[in-house]
Amino acid sequence: MGYTDDDLRHAAVLRDLALRDTEVWKLVEALTTEVGARPAGSAADARAASWAVAACRGLGLANVRAESLPLRIWQRGPASAQLVAPSTRPLVMAALGNSVAAPAGGIEAEIAWYPDLAALKADTSDHEKSRANGRIVFIDQKMERARDGRGYGAAVPARAVGAIEAARRGALALAIRSIGTDRDRIAHTGAMQYDLSVPRIPAFAVSVPDADLIARLNARGEPMRLQFTLESRSGVEATTQNVIAEVPGTDLADEIVLLGAHLDSWDLGQGAIDDGAGVAIVTAAAALLQRAGKRPRRTVRVALFANEENGFDGARAYGDRYGNVVHQLVAESDFGAGRVWQFKSRVQPAAQALADSMAQQLAPLGVAAGGYDGSPGPDAGVLMRRHRWPAAQLSQDGTNYFDVHHTENDTLDKIDPATLPQNVACWALLAWLAAQSPLPFGPPAL
Amino acid sequence: MGYTDDDLRHAAVLRDLALRDTEVWKLVEALTTEVGARPAGSAADARAASWAVAACRGLGLANVRAESLPLRIWQRGPASAQLVAPSTRPLVMAALGNSVAAPAGGIEAEIAWYPDLAALKADTSDHEKSRANGRIVFIDQKMERARDGRGYGAAVPARAVGAIEAARRGALALAIRSIGTDRDRIAHTGAMQYDLSVPRIPAFAVSVPDADLIARLNARGEPMRLQFTLESRSGVEATTQNVIAEVPGTDLADEIVLLGAHLDSWDLGQGAIDDGAGVAIVTAAAALLQRAGKRPRRTVRVALFANEENGFDGARAYGDRYGNVVHQLVAESDFGAGRVWQFKSRVQPAAQALADSMAQQLAPLGVAAGGYDGSPGPDAGVLMRRHRWPAAQLSQDGTNYFDVHHTENDTLDKIDPATLPQNVACWALLAWLAAQSPLPFGPPAL
Repeated sequence: MGYTDDDLRHAAVLRDLALRDTEVWKLVEALTTEVGARPAGSAADARAASWAVAACRGLGLANVRAESLPLRIWQRGPASAQLVAPSTRPLVMAALGNSVAAPAGGIEAEIAWYPDLAALKADTSDHEKSRANGRIVFIDQKMERARDGRGYGAAVPARAVGAIEAARRGALALAIRSIGTDRDRIAHTGAMQYDLSVPRIPAFAVSVPDADLIARLNARGEPMRLQFTLESRSGVEATTQNVIAEVPGTDLADEIVLLGAHLDSWDLGQGAIDDGAGVAIVTAAAALLQRAGKRPRRTVRVALFANEENGFDGARAYGDRYGNVVHQLVAESDFGAGRVWQFKSRVQPAAQALADSMAQQLAPLGVAAGGYDGSPGPDAGVLMRRHRWPAAQLSQDGTNYFDVHHTENDTLDKIDPATLPQNVACWALLAWLAAQSPLPFGPPAL
Repeated sequence: MGYTDDDLRHAAVLRDLALRDTEVWKLVEALTTEVGARPAGSAADARAASWAVAACRGLGLANVRAESLPLRIWQRGPASAQLVAPSTRPLVMAALGNSVAAPAGGIEAEIAWYPDLAALKADTSDHEKSRANGRIVFIDQKMERARDGRGYGAAVPARAVGAIEAARRGALALAIRSIGTDRDRIAHTGAMQYDLSVPRIPAFAVSVPDADLIARLNARGEPMRLQFTLESRSGVEATTQNVIAEVPGTDLADEIVLLGAHLDSWDLGQGAIDDGAGVAIVTAAAALLQRAGKRPRRTVRVALFANEENGFDGARAYGDRYGNVVHQLVAESDFGAGRVWQFKSRVQPAAQALADSMAQQLAPLGVAAGGYDGSPGPDAGVLMRRHRWPAAQLSQDGTNYFDVHHTENDTLDKIDPATLPQNVACWALLAWLAAQSPLPFGPPAL
């Protein structure tokens, strides 16, 4: 069983319309200009949800609503860091998300420098013998630039679990080279974890040029001392919201094709590439489906998730609420604004031929067929794994994504307006063909 | 009269040796790593002078000394800015050099937005009628990227005299788009002036993405309010120093070929491209002359000037001290670390044929002959004009120079080590051939 000629003709219409889309730019321009940074649970996050509801309604989408959920949030306070030996040098830094505050007055100690997380892990965990004991651990983990972002997965454990490994060895605090591919004097934040079995120590990232300086001083063999302050609050009760909007289906309207993105952002930039771009792309794709006039068989649902960055509260709340509803597909646009270069699916074997048809429709957009082991993005991935929902992945070119990811530099100017319509075309095709499928896509092999 | 065959053979030797130079990188690596930012009159500035004296002695240069001079300096204090309407948005900012402090608690006012300095100047200077009156003037002056840096000259008056024009119209403060070609969330500082005839108002630059945001909000037509704090001190008594080092001449040892750079930097970065690179280039060129073994006829003098950035105190003190000494040539390396692409001279007409010979020797290094209207750089330019000394210009590729100029981003990683030896070769050739000239180069037409 394959797609009807009618379905494929409409796919071609959508593709051509999408490549002339102007809504996608207007959406991301408005979100970054009128709201900007929108950490989950903040006043700006609430404004972002109101903005999204109004934008979706304005585009003619149906069943538009914000679904509130409670959560506990982490809030950044003032912070600073400097080398105080061998000489005084200010460092550009950012606390990692979830970091506990330093004691009032901050912490000053010698640096124990490690080239990467593996070197720290290889150090003895006997406090008395570890270099880390009583010092500030510095992890100089470097990140490789790659189109598919694989350098992030390789480097990010230094941020995620570095404080656990450092505390296990008696360290007073953790500092890391920013997990990023840029050379800007701007630090990258991001979520980090603690472990109940070891003390919670403050953790922050310094900019890449500052990490370079520390590495050069370390190479000179002189002891380095670091002083820092770091204020933060954890566990603050707040409210956030998933925003939902739909293109209602016809004979299979009870089944959902989910186009995801996340509405929240880190607090430092404008949330442009992460994930204003994704919000704009999936919203514009749904709006295009709506505008093109042919109603899909299944309901196409845009889900703008809450708090992807620091807890996946939105994805979990969505799963709690809609876990019993049939989902034909879940996918998420959350890798910036680069062109889509690859399509991957994760569907039941009988539906793989339909995924192949989708790939054929995407091919004229410069998208390669990438197999059946797709990862649909962070929130959609949570849902795929928890509910065994079928999924798809539209891989964006992430070569430059980690230059500004989780930084003050994540601003509108980092988005090339020319790459957005191709994204809209891919998402409109994906949504349409998933909605028209003569077969259920699930359950997939996980 | 032209150069001897011996002189030209040695020029070729110097060129080949310079292209294998490794000292230049070591110098700039050491200055940025061991000292970093060194605003004139600061403790770091004094450490930079000590470092330079030790470095020049280590390279075998003669008559190495630091010549102290008193000066009054401007010191940056804490500062911050944010939009408070139409919504609260933090701005990345930096006070301009010489800005007076804002009153305690800062200033909050509506923004009067102007697209450029010309638009502000075109506004009425009648207080009661000007939009600027009682507001914070924002000048959105944009800067063009160009190899020869011409965009800087076109844009920089907004920074230099914007506060005068704003105050003349009753403004409470001046904010400008950073004078730079980047799109980083990093503000560019730089010197600004006041005029005795109008009030001194605080002045600062915001980063380019922040200026973009303000422009987008301005386009929406909603009133914008800005709140900022700015602390600073002016007129602080301090001491700085010019550092001098020489390759002594032979029969014309009393005449000076001056290779200049400036030792001070703005306070925000590491002073890598501005002007650690120039310090390293001219020092390495003189060291190469020394190492190559053939003594020049005239004395080749490296002069590392004090406080180029905010007052030219070093250049003026140099002129006061050495104004009566014959200078065969003055030139300065102060445009980053890009390759030299052009040579220009400013010598007496009878010596232009010798300048042409120099251009021929530079040609194999990819340097074009650029005429007789050379500008020798900021400090050397002060001296050329004041003492009517002959001059030369080795134009560097400045395409990317203004991305990081006067910012926290002026760090070692912005220098490509591969472009430095070609610079050393050009400076060594220039010094050698000026020193060997059978004719005086001056006085030039100014």
